[in-house]
Amino acid sequence: MDASRLELLSASDAARAIAEGAISSEQLVAACLARIRTVEPEVQAWQYLDPDHALAQARARDLDRREGRACGPLHGVPVGIKDIIDTVDMPTEDGTVLHAGRTPDRDATVVAMLRAAGAVILGKTVTTECAYFHPGKTRNPHHSGHTPGGSSSGSAAAVAAGMVPLALGSQTNGSVIRPAAFCGVYGFKPTHGLISRHGILKLSRTLDHVGVFARTLEDIALAAEQLVGHDERDPDTTPRARIPLVRTAAEEPPLPPLLAFVKTPVWDRAAAETRDAFAELTEALGAQCEVYELPESLRAAWDWHRTIMEAEMAANLEREWEKGRDRLSEPLRALLARGHEVKAVEYQKALARIAVLNQGFEELFSRYDAVLTPSAPGTAPEGLTATGDPAFCSLWTLCGMPALNLPLMRGENALPLGAQLVGARHDDARLLRTARWLVSQVQAD
Amino acid sequence: MDASRLELLSASDAARAIAEGAISSEQLVAACLARIRTVEPEVQAWQYLDPDHALAQARARDLDRREGRACGPLHGVPVGIKDIIDTVDMPTEDGTVLHAGRTPDRDATVVAMLRAAGAVILGKTVTTECAYFHPGKTRNPHHSGHTPGGSSSGSAAAVAAGMVPLALGSQTNGSVIRPAAFCGVYGFKPTHGLISRHGILKLSRTLDHVGVFARTLEDIALAAEQLVGHDERDPDTTPRARIPLVRTAAEEPPLPPLLAFVKTPVWDRAAAETRDAFAELTEALGAQCEVYELPESLRAAWDWHRTIMEAEMAANLEREWEKGRDRLSEPLRALLARGHEVKAVEYQKALARIAVLNQGFEELFSRYDAVLTPSAPGTAPEGLTATGDPAFCSLWTLCGMPALNLPLMRGENALPLGAQLVGARHDDARLLRTARWLVSQVQAD
Repeated sequence: MDASRLELLSASDAARAIAEGAISSEQLVAACLARIRTVEPEVQAWQYLDPDHALAQARARDLDRREGRACGPLHGVPVGIKDIIDTVDMPTEDGTVLHAGRTPDRDATVVAMLRAAGAVILGKTVTTECAYFHPGKTRNPHHSGHTPGGSSSGSAAAVAAGMVPLALGSQTNGSVIRPAAFCGVYGFKPTHGLISRHGILKLSRTLDHVGVFARTLEDIALAAEQLVGHDERDPDTTPRARIPLVRTAAEEPPLPPLLAFVKTPVWDRAAAETRDAFAELTEALGAQCEVYELPESLRAAWDWHRTIMEAEMAANLEREWEKGRDRLSEPLRALLARGHEVKAVEYQKALARIAVLNQGFEELFSRYDAVLTPSAPGTAPEGLTATGDPAFCSLWTLCGMPALNLPLMRGENALPLGAQLVGARHDDARLLRTARWLVSQVQAD
Repeated sequence: MDASRLELLSASDAARAIAEGAISSEQLVAACLARIRTVEPEVQAWQYLDPDHALAQARARDLDRREGRACGPLHGVPVGIKDIIDTVDMPTEDGTVLHAGRTPDRDATVVAMLRAAGAVILGKTVTTECAYFHPGKTRNPHHSGHTPGGSSSGSAAAVAAGMVPLALGSQTNGSVIRPAAFCGVYGFKPTHGLISRHGILKLSRTLDHVGVFARTLEDIALAAEQLVGHDERDPDTTPRARIPLVRTAAEEPPLPPLLAFVKTPVWDRAAAETRDAFAELTEALGAQCEVYELPESLRAAWDWHRTIMEAEMAANLEREWEKGRDRLSEPLRALLARGHEVKAVEYQKALARIAVLNQGFEELFSRYDAVLTPSAPGTAPEGLTATGDPAFCSLWTLCGMPALNLPLMRGENALPLGAQLVGARHDDARLLRTARWLVSQVQAD
């Protein structure tokens, strides 16, 4: 194996190579660190990175293997962790000066699960301020004058730039799908409640999701499969049988899938490049893709999402608001101020709509395997003072449906342009299988 | 068996007698109906009662038995149902003119479960307006000038007056424990989430509990055991192994239980008769009962309860508020008006306290088997324009802990005076076992 390009291995290939003894975790991590030394000055994806600590973890994983200890599915594979996810051995600063120097005394559940699967926690990736809009330092690896998207900016950029094969992020509105689209990688946000949020900066119990970034669909399935599980400390997770994401994602669909191309009530925000790209994509899919019109009344769903997000963020960031609002950005301060004004009745009404919305989507998902829709209005906008518009994600996040960004297309400026594929709740494995089929169709063209 | 006193049989004895063929369900129901003819003009416990329909159900249960069909644990036993709990064969009017003539098109889950256990749904019992404070027509069977308590007024009074051995009620604040105490019967509100609320007038997902009334502890266990179960339509119920309430309630405790006598921050509302009765009771219990002081900070729990109840009732009674607030009583209208003003942040903060409160009680329940505390400030107050003060129930309802009223004592006016026994969440079976021990101690005195 060419040790000079190990950093470009997929996580699945790397795990296989390590398990077979073809490469060591130390070699892989060293390759990633070398890549980081080269591109990080431009991309700035990392909030915290201690190369020695990363290499020490890798050597410990190599020792596990040499001494015959059980090796997990991610044994020796490095993973980047969004800096709102607690790590016991690295600071977790949540993208705000208010939490500068914060050192958690335990790992978030997802970090503990990654370690149990054998992963090396490479470092902490840049997040926007409190995973909301105000950007961190990260730049788009495809063009450093453009935003990488947010809030999982560093995770998307690090994977896109070949610095690490896998990274964790989170999504409360569009914070996984949008940066994945802007950076041109796969991003996956499973069904709400599948992955524990314990030990992660809590913005909104109703809307917060953990997500994963990777450069292949197989890696998305591999990473997500390690993370799904019941955690008593996250009341939205429940005991359930293991979901065979890797196996199902690798299977051929029993029938050619049928996709619903959904423009959503925010279609007027789609850029010309997006309209053109989807016209081409849906035409290429022919009979396997049909235009599906959502009722106009669904426009209110964006208001329900905003009401819930504002009210829950105001409650969960109460201490930051009380003690340090002058150190918060203006957009976050304004959001929290709005959140404090939301009435409990209005908030409960918005919450109650979620189940009704999902019932309404049953008809769609009884006919279609997945929804096809843009991940964002267009490619990554120019400038580093904002992270782009999450509007194409809000509805699916509100419904808690599994959503994927597929880096299938390019915009006119050659920046990545993402297609979003959304499945029915708890149909995560089928969504990955449908996605693999869709990718193969596009690549065959 | 003396057919002239069948209406005084316990549900457990009646079920055994029916199973053995010693009596028929028709005889039992006829005896209850005869008793109702005698005492109902004074007590007024029933909102809807069709004797022919009740007898027809009883004859159908008798036919089941004669034809060798499976018989449930409540086969042929009549049960009264609070008139906020939907029944497919009887109106359900929720104690408000706004719902007059309402005829549900299906049974509430608990009614379906009772029917599956073989019960005869005798009729619908009087509730206060929307299970809140404004009284219905029911009078206290021990003294018709006194309130029976509320909101499950008719259920408590019907059981106390010997009209039916079992009845269902509900509690959002003190609506099972208080009327049970005032009417001198056992009342039990199991742990939040054990019994489905689907098909029951929804006031507050967080605080609503189903409860049962009976004249013996064995009957309480028998009825509750039929009702516990997972229901996908009540998101707070979860799949769990069957809880052997009847068996555990009948067992001797492995060690003499230790009770925590908790006065709570509302002790200043306790009447002299209550203070005297509890002084005597705790003295009689000697070393098996210790005074336990709650921290003064817990006084805020009553505010949290009120915030949640007002905010959730305002959301759940939105239609009644919008379309018919002039037909609501002044207290309910005022509550809903307050509920509309609650801020979402304040509401969420109150919700978040519940888990913290329960954690705080872990220390208490690691030493004590149960909390002993009054069910109400005193005996049933005179007058029929109010239903008494639920303050002694609010904390335990907020925490979702299982609570029992034990009709152990009498006040100076010879009206019943209740002792409330509260257990740790999900320790329902032990609570019943502890209660049986406590009753035996008091009766042995």
